[in-house]
Amino acid sequence: MFQKISTLVFIGLFSIAAAVQAQHEHPHDHQHPIREVTFPDIPGYQTLSTDLHIHTVFSDGSVWPDIRVQEAMKDNLDAIAMTDHLEYQPHSDDIPHPDRNRSYEIASEQADEDELIVINGSEITRSMPPGHSNAVFVEDANKLLVDDAKAAFREAKKQGAFTFWNHPYWLRQASDGMPPLSELHKTLIEGDMLHGIEVVNMDRYSREALQIALDYDLTIMGTSDVHGLIDWDYQTQHDDHRPVTLVFAKERTKEGLREALFAGRTVVWKDDLLIGREEYLVPLVESSLTVENSSYIDETSVLQLTIRNSTGQKYQLENLSDYSFHRNAGHVTVEPFDSLSLQIRTGKRLDQIQLPFKVYNAVTAPETNPEIMLEASIDE
Amino acid sequence: MFQKISTLVFIGLFSIAAAVQAQHEHPHDHQHPIREVTFPDIPGYQTLSTDLHIHTVFSDGSVWPDIRVQEAMKDNLDAIAMTDHLEYQPHSDDIPHPDRNRSYEIASEQADEDELIVINGSEITRSMPPGHSNAVFVEDANKLLVDDAKAAFREAKKQGAFTFWNHPYWLRQASDGMPPLSELHKTLIEGDMLHGIEVVNMDRYSREALQIALDYDLTIMGTSDVHGLIDWDYQTQHDDHRPVTLVFAKERTKEGLREALFAGRTVVWKDDLLIGREEYLVPLVESSLTVENSSYIDETSVLQLTIRNSTGQKYQLENLSDYSFHRNAGHVTVEPFDSLSLQIRTGKRLDQIQLPFKVYNAVTAPETNPEIMLEASIDE
Amino acid sequence: MFQKISTLVFIGLFSIAAAVQAQHEHPHDHQHPIREVTFPDIPGYQTLSTDLHIHTVFSDGSVWPDIRVQEAMKDNLDAIAMTDHLEYQPHSDDIPHPDRNRSYEIASEQADEDELIVINGSEITRSMPPGHSNAVFVEDANKLLVDDAKAAFREAKKQGAFTFWNHPYWLRQASDGMPPLSELHKTLIEGDMLHGIEVVNMDRYSREALQIALDYDLTIMGTSDVHGLIDWDYQTQHDDHRPVTLVFAKERTKEGLREALFAGRTVVWKDDLLIGREEYLVPLVESSLTVENSSYIDETSVLQLTIRNSTGQKYQLENLSDYSFHRNAGHVTVEPFDSLSLQIRTGKRLDQIQLPFKVYNAVTAPETNPEIMLEASIDE
Amino acid sequence: MFQKISTLVFIGLFSIAAAVQAQHEHPHDHQHPIREVTFPDIPGYQTLSTDLHIHTVFSDGSVWPDIRVQEAMKDNLDAIAMTDHLEYQPHSDDIPHPDRNRSYEIASEQADEDELIVINGSEITRSMPPGHSNAVFVEDANKLLVDDAKAAFREAKKQGAFTFWNHPYWLRQASDGMPPLSELHKTLIEGDMLHGIEVVNMDRYSREALQIALDYDLTIMGTSDVHGLIDWDYQTQHDDHRPVTLVFAKERTKEGLREALFAGRTVVWKDDLLIGREEYLVPLVESSLTVENSSYIDETSVLQLTIRNSTGQKYQLENLSDYSFHRNAGHVTVEPFDSLSLQIRTGKRLDQIQLPFKVYNAVTAPETNPEIMLEASIDE
Repeated sequence: MFQKISTLVFIGLFSIAAAVQAQHEHPHDHQHPIREVTFPDIPGYQTLSTDLHIHTVFSDGSVWPDIRVQEAMKDNLDAIAMTDHLEYQPHSDDIPHPDRNRSYEIASEQADEDELIVINGSEITRSMPPGHSNAVFVEDANKLLVDDAKAAFREAKKQGAFTFWNHPYWLRQASDGMPPLSELHKTLIEGDMLHGIEVVNMDRYSREALQIALDYDLTIMGTSDVHGLIDWDYQTQHDDHRPVTLVFAKERTKEGLREALFAGRTVVWKDDLLIGREEYLVPLVESSLTVENSSYIDETSVLQLTIRNSTGQKYQLENLSDYSFHRNAGHVTVEPFDSLSLQIRTGKRLDQIQLPFKVYNAVTAPETNPEIMLEASIDE
Repeated sequence: MFQKISTLVFIGLFSIAAAVQAQHEHPHDHQHPIREVTFPDIPGYQTLSTDLHIHTVFSDGSVWPDIRVQEAMKDNLDAIAMTDHLEYQPHSDDIPHPDRNRSYEIASEQADEDELIVINGSEITRSMPPGHSNAVFVEDANKLLVDDAKAAFREAKKQGAFTFWNHPYWLRQASDGMPPLSELHKTLIEGDMLHGIEVVNMDRYSREALQIALDYDLTIMGTSDVHGLIDWDYQTQHDDHRPVTLVFAKERTKEGLREALFAGRTVVWKDDLLIGREEYLVPLVESSLTVENSSYIDETSVLQLTIRNSTGQKYQLENLSDYSFHRNAGHVTVEPFDSLSLQIRTGKRLDQIQLPFKVYNAVTAPETNPEIMLEASIDE
Repeated sequence: MFQKISTLVFIGLFSIAAAVQAQHEHPHDHQHPIREVTFPDIPGYQTLSTDLHIHTVFSDGSVWPDIRVQEAMKDNLDAIAMTDHLEYQPHSDDIPHPDRNRSYEIASEQADEDELIVINGSEITRSMPPGHSNAVFVEDANKLLVDDAKAAFREAKKQGAFTFWNHPYWLRQASDGMPPLSELHKTLIEGDMLHGIEVVNMDRYSREALQIALDYDLTIMGTSDVHGLIDWDYQTQHDDHRPVTLVFAKERTKEGLREALFAGRTVVWKDDLLIGREEYLVPLVESSLTVENSSYIDETSVLQLTIRNSTGQKYQLENLSDYSFHRNAGHVTVEPFDSLSLQIRTGKRLDQIQLPFKVYNAVTAPETNPEIMLEASIDE
Repeated sequence: MFQKISTLVFIGLFSIAAAVQAQHEHPHDHQHPIREVTFPDIPGYQTLSTDLHIHTVFSDGSVWPDIRVQEAMKDNLDAIAMTDHLEYQPHSDDIPHPDRNRSYEIASEQADEDELIVINGSEITRSMPPGHSNAVFVEDANKLLVDDAKAAFREAKKQGAFTFWNHPYWLRQASDGMPPLSELHKTLIEGDMLHGIEVVNMDRYSREALQIALDYDLTIMGTSDVHGLIDWDYQTQHDDHRPVTLVFAKERTKEGLREALFAGRTVVWKDDLLIGREEYLVPLVESSLTVENSSYIDETSVLQLTIRNSTGQKYQLENLSDYSFHRNAGHVTVEPFDSLSLQIRTGKRLDQIQLPFKVYNAVTAPETNPEIMLEASIDE
């Protein structure tokens, strides 16, 4: 090509060549750490970020509950549940016979509910089946501390708790990493005593657990199950984040959260993977990405536009339209809190455009990626 | 789960839960800037990194040739071609009637051929058709400065030059961004006077140009076409890199390069996209990635291994095996100069494993991604 | 100490202990690169940033003049002078007999004078004495190209040029690095033909040159003397910056600059060192630093305040007051574009405070640091 | 100056000008985080890094003791003391009547003594006088829990403990931030029941406390007094570090540490400030800095050498020699884990050189900086 020059002396065939343009701003320059969970609301619902599986010194965790509140504030969460083990009490020499509601009580005192909702919960800790389960929104955790596993679930149900199966692919209880779905589980599900399943626990994801969620209409859950420090487990200084369950609620209250969990309105965010039912995942992605500044380059039929990402998720997209891009192959990435400038060869000049994409770091079922549609009217 | 504790007092069902493990080292911590092009050799060939489209003050560029040599050294290139415009001479007031070989001569003096091969070239600069073309490996560039375009190509052929069509999707000469393949082009191709085509020029990629390369058996080329500074055009401080053509040569010499270009043995690297014929692209990726430390976790059937990436390319892979991963969905990324730790649920314990992946940021044809196979024997 | 707790149950002696507070924001997080020279105006004058020693392909530099303009824009300079060697012309094979005003003419065309003032200049390039000197604000550089060195200075004077001695400590011309002040220099100074002296050239500073400036009432100058690329010579990606001469002008025009240079109103900025006459250096530092938010901690006599630094200079200060600091020893640093929070034990509660500091990375004479005074009234 | 060119055609006066050279590597690129305390041994002693003032849930801290062990490992400490408050027990509802040795016992179990020495301690927590004090190396902390303050100190002495006055400038107990030295303190000192004093506690330094240490021959101490998380209090992700006491011991054992503390062999490191007696501080700095690669530039009398800093301390030095530097004014900085290249105008060529410096971010007494001597023989 030719370089831009002030006085163009050549034969007149050519004019100024565009310089190479940055397609990205630079993600490691952004001001907003990835750990601060930030997703937009979706039509009809508020998007609340939650971590509903958390331990403290009141079972086998290593911190007082106040640290959990401060971690959640740093992570911009809307809600946490304190879910110390009911049965497993390795600190009993020093903290004998604790009231099983204590971590909740202490955390509640520390948190301002306008900023952070704290939920009372318990981990029902059993060998497989049924393995470990969390009951959240319990009224009195002590009453769940009973010999018979099923009795514990019945008490949780009686208290109105939302109950989910924890890490069903935990190698200690499933040496092939496959969730050992049992008759007991099915009984609990049918008896309305088991409502959700962790498809993500700590750093692990299970496509088989996701399939169980879909097969049995369970709420899709993801949690940190933190025992030590969030900063250390998730290397927050390197812009990693804890796994969270995004809950789509009618109101930002405990009751709003509870209703949404029972209704199954969740998406899980782990690393740069989103997992959820299509009806919530698609609007979440579409709300996260905005098309800006669509206009044609000079007199050409090449359209330039910007896709802005308001979230900490790195969206990896595949072009499903018939148009080719002027700078990229069909796979493009919109970095967190960043924007992507695209140039699109539309063949003729359009008034508006529809851009279908596959989101290949999101799943609605095992190995199934959702498709989204971005739309824009084009500036004259 | 349970936290690791020193003395395990619980019922004996459980043992130590693995802590959350880092799957990645952190790419922005690596010592090796992405700008330093680093790809391994492939079976049978040396991999040479080249930029064969470069301007200086001897046409419409803004630097003396010595800067081009220093830029290439910083970028760890094996070869550059000096390709100032023959016809377009906006600096002629100050540099009147230059010998068209001068930028090559000066750059050659500056470069140590053991470190950087400098190739003599010319940009034949015409309106469309045929548009702009580069002839590289010319003997005397001055002789290409003739009135008739075809005569220039004939002279290039006579000198043994390798000639390629530059930025056929340049908006100045193709307002829809589509390469206007003409009868003249076909005649040049048939007459063995046009041997390659830029599918990447500066920041632009053209899937239509790639299709022409495949249809007409042209060598796939990518170049910077730099006029100003590499550092500014490609934001090297933010770990971007200039586009390069990787050439698979029998020897690291001018003649080796020339032979490989005529033979069509190239892959283009632009941003994090690789473009090339399957027969070179697949071994390039397979040589870039190494499987290490394969072993089963304790007594489980979950295999842990590490994929190490020796290059500055970020490989985005999709799991094509039947196995599910214990931490990731099927799409995974191996960051530049980094490694990825994978846990794989193999169902039963294996002695060795084959892992097929689709590489979704590489293309062998428009919208066509290559498949690679990684293999490992498993430690006892 | 005690940790902050919600309900304080202890004997009532103690209340909440302040947490450890960040004294600094983090300099490598700032948005504003250090290379962008940013200093405030001082009372009575505008502060203009300049680099008055610059080369291009029109003598022994490696870039076309347009790159110099773009570099200056990136560095946020107010003015540059194009000072190619008159006599030294290593590119004469390709650029024969150049008009010595050409680099100025081309750069002028590229620059918008509202953004960047370009000044015509020449490097009079001789063996020692008098060595190399720059004449800036020349009208026709060609007329300075004469055999006799003194004649060149006379012509510069005739054209109204401001002339300064370049790198008098250059090892090629002064093997001990000491400026060889000669009778010829004294004659030029007395004859009003030499008005300034570089105390900084490239990465070198000379306290002996500074002493000569003070002894002979010469203007204190610092320049890049760039031949290659500013980005490479000054590692701008690592937040280094080129050396500049800050000029305190009555107006932001060529004439304003010229008047200020003849009047000796300059401060040189090199790395994190400021060099200048006390009458300009002290107000420059005092204008750079602002005291904010002064108030006493609770009922104590410990004053807390913030010193904000609006510049890219790292100010290293030594407390000259009688007060001790509650967190720091007497030496403190205010990082670039950052603020420093200080706690000061004033013994009794004051209404206002005066804080004298020595600035130990600034010099007004060899090994002589200026003293500044920061003042603040204290909030109730 | 002139740029380096391949063929030097000019009059022969000049040769190749040195390019601008980097004086620093870049501190934020180093591999070793500042938080990892790393100081060399000094002649006759091993240098052990310690934090002897630490809280857990067993008084008013927010973590289980295992976190303190992990934090210390991350910080590369040699020893910590667990010093929960004896009297102040805000967690008594949940941890009733704790054995005052418990945090020590639990931490000891977690730590491998080859890696981290854990010391039993107690904070004797009283109103002023005597305020708060730490007794470390106690045998049974419970026996110190007595009504009379002096009796607690007597018991500590009986057990062989080393005892130091904590944060004597704490605003809760000294509203002017001045240490309220009392007759009781003098009695304790005379009775060999108070051996040290914190000149640094958390983020605070007190020159008045340092003066008391010198006047009364007390060991100079600095501690974190951590209640929450080290990472949060000291922003370790931004390369800050907790305050530590460096102890110069004859052997790396508990007894070695104890002997050294009683002998007063300490230096405190806080931010980038070192505080200690001259006899330990001077060899510490001299052991931290190494002169390398001393040689003269070409035929000049300008010496070039490198000062390498093996520590995480940023050394700020002032040239006390008669020589001037060729690039810097007299104040220079050797960044952490980095090196500084100096050029020195020695007037004539020497065989060896002595370079005296003042270290202006180190104090041996209030407002008193130590002087060090670096020496090198010069390569031919």
